[in-house]
Amino acid sequence: MNKAALYHRPESEFAYLYTRDTMQVRLQAQKDDIEKVELFYGDPYLWEGVEDPEHQTWKSAQVEMKKVLSTNRSDFFEAEITVATKRVDYLFVVTGLDGEKVVYTDQGLLDYDETLITKKYGAFRLPYFHETDRFKTPGWVKETVWYQIFPERFANGDTQNDPEGTKAWNALDVPDRQDFYGGDLQGVLDHLDHLTELGVNGIYFTPIFQAYSNHKYDTEDYLAIDKNFGDKALFKHLVEEAHARGIKVMLDAVFNHIGDTSPQWQDVLKHQEKSKYADWFHVNSWPATYTPTDDFENAENATYDTFAFTPHMPKLNTANPEVEAYLLEIADYWIREFDIDAWRLDVADEVDHTFWKKFRATCDAAKKDFYILGEVWHSAQPWLVGDEFTAVMNYAYTDAIKDGLITKKISLPQMVSNINTQLTLYRKQVNQVMFNVLDSHDTPRILTVANENKALMKLVETFTFLQPGVPCIYYGDEYALTGGMDPECRKCMPWIKEEQDVEMFEFFKELIALRHAYQEVLSDAAVVWQEVDGKKGVVEIQRGELKGCFNIGENAVKFEADEIIFSNLVEDETILPFGFVVYK
Amino acid sequence: MNKAALYHRPESEFAYLYTRDTMQVRLQAQKDDIEKVELFYGDPYLWEGVEDPEHQTWKSAQVEMKKVLSTNRSDFFEAEITVATKRVDYLFVVTGLDGEKVVYTDQGLLDYDETLITKKYGAFRLPYFHETDRFKTPGWVKETVWYQIFPERFANGDTQNDPEGTKAWNALDVPDRQDFYGGDLQGVLDHLDHLTELGVNGIYFTPIFQAYSNHKYDTEDYLAIDKNFGDKALFKHLVEEAHARGIKVMLDAVFNHIGDTSPQWQDVLKHQEKSKYADWFHVNSWPATYTPTDDFENAENATYDTFAFTPHMPKLNTANPEVEAYLLEIADYWIREFDIDAWRLDVADEVDHTFWKKFRATCDAAKKDFYILGEVWHSAQPWLVGDEFTAVMNYAYTDAIKDGLITKKISLPQMVSNINTQLTLYRKQVNQVMFNVLDSHDTPRILTVANENKALMKLVETFTFLQPGVPCIYYGDEYALTGGMDPECRKCMPWIKEEQDVEMFEFFKELIALRHAYQEVLSDAAVVWQEVDGKKGVVEIQRGELKGCFNIGENAVKFEADEIIFSNLVEDETILPFGFVVYK
Repeated sequence: MNKAALYHRPESEFAYLYTRDTMQVRLQAQKDDIEKVELFYGDPYLWEGVEDPEHQTWKSAQVEMKKVLSTNRSDFFEAEITVATKRVDYLFVVTGLDGEKVVYTDQGLLDYDETLITKKYGAFRLPYFHETDRFKTPGWVKETVWYQIFPERFANGDTQNDPEGTKAWNALDVPDRQDFYGGDLQGVLDHLDHLTELGVNGIYFTPIFQAYSNHKYDTEDYLAIDKNFGDKALFKHLVEEAHARGIKVMLDAVFNHIGDTSPQWQDVLKHQEKSKYADWFHVNSWPATYTPTDDFENAENATYDTFAFTPHMPKLNTANPEVEAYLLEIADYWIREFDIDAWRLDVADEVDHTFWKKFRATCDAAKKDFYILGEVWHSAQPWLVGDEFTAVMNYAYTDAIKDGLITKKISLPQMVSNINTQLTLYRKQVNQVMFNVLDSHDTPRILTVANENKALMKLVETFTFLQPGVPCIYYGDEYALTGGMDPECRKCMPWIKEEQDVEMFEFFKELIALRHAYQEVLSDAAVVWQEVDGKKGVVEIQRGELKGCFNIGENAVKFEADEIIFSNLVEDETILPFGFVVYK
Repeated sequence: MNKAALYHRPESEFAYLYTRDTMQVRLQAQKDDIEKVELFYGDPYLWEGVEDPEHQTWKSAQVEMKKVLSTNRSDFFEAEITVATKRVDYLFVVTGLDGEKVVYTDQGLLDYDETLITKKYGAFRLPYFHETDRFKTPGWVKETVWYQIFPERFANGDTQNDPEGTKAWNALDVPDRQDFYGGDLQGVLDHLDHLTELGVNGIYFTPIFQAYSNHKYDTEDYLAIDKNFGDKALFKHLVEEAHARGIKVMLDAVFNHIGDTSPQWQDVLKHQEKSKYADWFHVNSWPATYTPTDDFENAENATYDTFAFTPHMPKLNTANPEVEAYLLEIADYWIREFDIDAWRLDVADEVDHTFWKKFRATCDAAKKDFYILGEVWHSAQPWLVGDEFTAVMNYAYTDAIKDGLITKKISLPQMVSNINTQLTLYRKQVNQVMFNVLDSHDTPRILTVANENKALMKLVETFTFLQPGVPCIYYGDEYALTGGMDPECRKCMPWIKEEQDVEMFEFFKELIALRHAYQEVLSDAAVVWQEVDGKKGVVEIQRGELKGCFNIGENAVKFEADEIIFSNLVEDETILPFGFVVYK
């Protein structure tokens, strides 16, 4: 047995409360190396044979763990257990295919000896089932299909508030970095029917607060609606209208940095170290300055910390109690006054955990079942313990999908391995609410990634909708909008019939309906990989009663189904290249 | 290469800030399997060849990681790195002894390909060096040798406050579970010279608040000094006197449960579900009751949660905001009013993390450089992230020492493996302040565990003093007190000259002096195992310039030293059985 490959970690995604009374236990081992894993567990204080302490034995129960997921190097075993006293000690007895048997304890690995169990040598522990510490998720999130709106490019509902130099709305334009097209909140309000028809029931707005740029990630005033987007009364009305349609509303909080046109940073530039905001930022040496380059977004020799190397986005010192109070007040304000349902947190990973824990407490106090979504592009365990975010933008997951199904940077088995790696990083209830985005304002459009192959785009969307986690559609994808990296991916929404891909819209309508119809299975059921054939280019996933088979190979492949639920490029029980079928 | 054995975890003891600007990175691999580990790291946003994004490459630095510790199955590699912009992306390139080469990424494991580095495929990340999130430890803790006092048995300085039925002070008595001997705070005050002579500079008091029992773990009133121990004025004076001698003071907070004689629980018993304290506890079904057994400390069918199965210790519902406020006020009160330096937290693992985070914030606000010590007998990663405890009672570590050096439940190589397993569970700065107890009021006396072999006891004490972490001496060990499990380990302190083992006292004086003299090395230097020979019974450890060699075998063993610092049973450059030598 490969003993070095065994891994377990108490009070983590390897051992946690799933419901109030049930605990999930996970063990990592080398792939195809283990005969069986037995889990011995019981109350830490419960011994049998009370009279003579020397001969007492630990009162334990026993369960064989199930292999649930595999990567290219590891198998993951799981069991769900409970103990009436809400306290659990546990030990693993692992038997290798080679017959070797060991006990994996909190003290390390020991050769098997029955007394290690009966005497409970160095057991792992979940000391008490604390409901307050359990990772809890709002029920509505699992039922949501999100739709991301970049307000400046979604719809211009009010030309009165257009900024100077606004260009004519044209979905064929490839916008420049500093262009304005006049999109606003009235435009969103005017098109709520579009969203309802599509079937989405959550809007993620990129920032709508007063800011200099078209993307608004350089906030000037967190307490004002951008004057080119509308005003507070309009936004309040928009939230009410959305809620009336069962649509949740998520705003974007840019708390890692502020815009350089904000009064706070302007005060620093003016008064430098004497500014009352001097400690609101991370100025490494005074004066706060930088050397401009040809690139607007890249400075050299900045003497202060910024987002990336953008001099226009000075990083906020969120460890300063004044900044903390300022931002928490903002977080609270938009929830209490406008009844928003969720915050999306920009560059969330670069803000300190201390701040986010207070942010979480603030939101929870303001509204029940609030959803907090962090922008984290890499693995996100540190933020997903239960007291910071509910989920993160799941780029690490969808990158594997894109790299496997589209760009073929990785093989299909490697894609499945990467996906399973991501799934094993989190608690089950976290995977159910992760925010699965194939594209966004920060990436090329999925159709462009797919070399404008619409069939492949549909295949990838459907594959993603069959994953745990909640999907999000980037505005315009439903009309087959294209575009490379920002600013190309921020084209105007095509509202002229002739510019709309109606067939793609119908595809999304059906896909979203499928997601809603099978929401429970697609949220909660285990991920089971049926076939993963890199050479043929076929991958098949099962989620409960549903199966999905996807063909990215060069040849048609056969399949057998009792009932076809949803498909593309399917003929006579074969899936053509770039086709897929969702069936029972 | 054993690829399944590679393990890394971002933002954990595998990747953390050690100082404000330096990050420690750790990788786990199979023992004796790896040729080398190269760490590539750099700012996430820094690319070279800006003109054509397609051909940009990531600007990274590179360092070879060092093998620092091994267990019976794993090798641990470490590197210390920094990046000027305080943001780090990193990837591991691992080469096996068999020549296989892989890249270990945040997306999982991939076959080596240079472009994975130059294109930075799925890098691990420490997003920003947040000083506020860094695990920080009070400087004074590393310099402390602790002394644990069980007040009822340390010294009776005031017979006026003795409880009814107090027995005559007799260090030869084996106390019964409910006995009182009249020990009190005046007794401690009277014997501060003893502590100063011994050389200890921290007192850990088991509980001193009003309670029913002799051990006081069944608190009646957290805001009163137990009437048999003294009063607040006396305690204040005692803290001042201790501080004047450079001795820190740590009190014991029993917040997991309360005594059943407390007014709160009595009110519940009286008014049951109508009590205003009904939700202060975990009553699973009303009425709150239990079936007594012959054993005072064991109930059957208790309808409420307790500590273990003790009906007299009803568990507090620390998730109730009223309870939370009540306990935090107590935590704050004794720090602000009496200037204590540390809290030891009883049954700390069974209280929720949410509460401890607030507790930590309360203590930090009340006093700078405050030490929080949790009672956790198993591995304690979840509490040692930086926002809960500073350290835990390191039983998991000292169990390995006792099992290896005394009871021989495990071999010497297994002992070293277990010790190294424990060391790799935590950040470096945590290991430096862990609370190393060989015995306490909750265990048999170390001399009794050692079958009253005083040489072996000295060997084990010295071995423990050479470990990272701060040692604690249980009162009376310095006079070779014996006793099995509680209540036997709670004998009266021998204050009569004839009952004192003066030779053992001298041993401890020298050992403590050694610890103080070499404090820096013994706190900070790497743990290096020179010789671990299970058959011969020899283990040798190196900490910087110091080496310690220990002989638990049957034969004398030779050693070579430039300078002997401290030793026992050493003759003519040989260490006799049960002897040891600390040397340069």
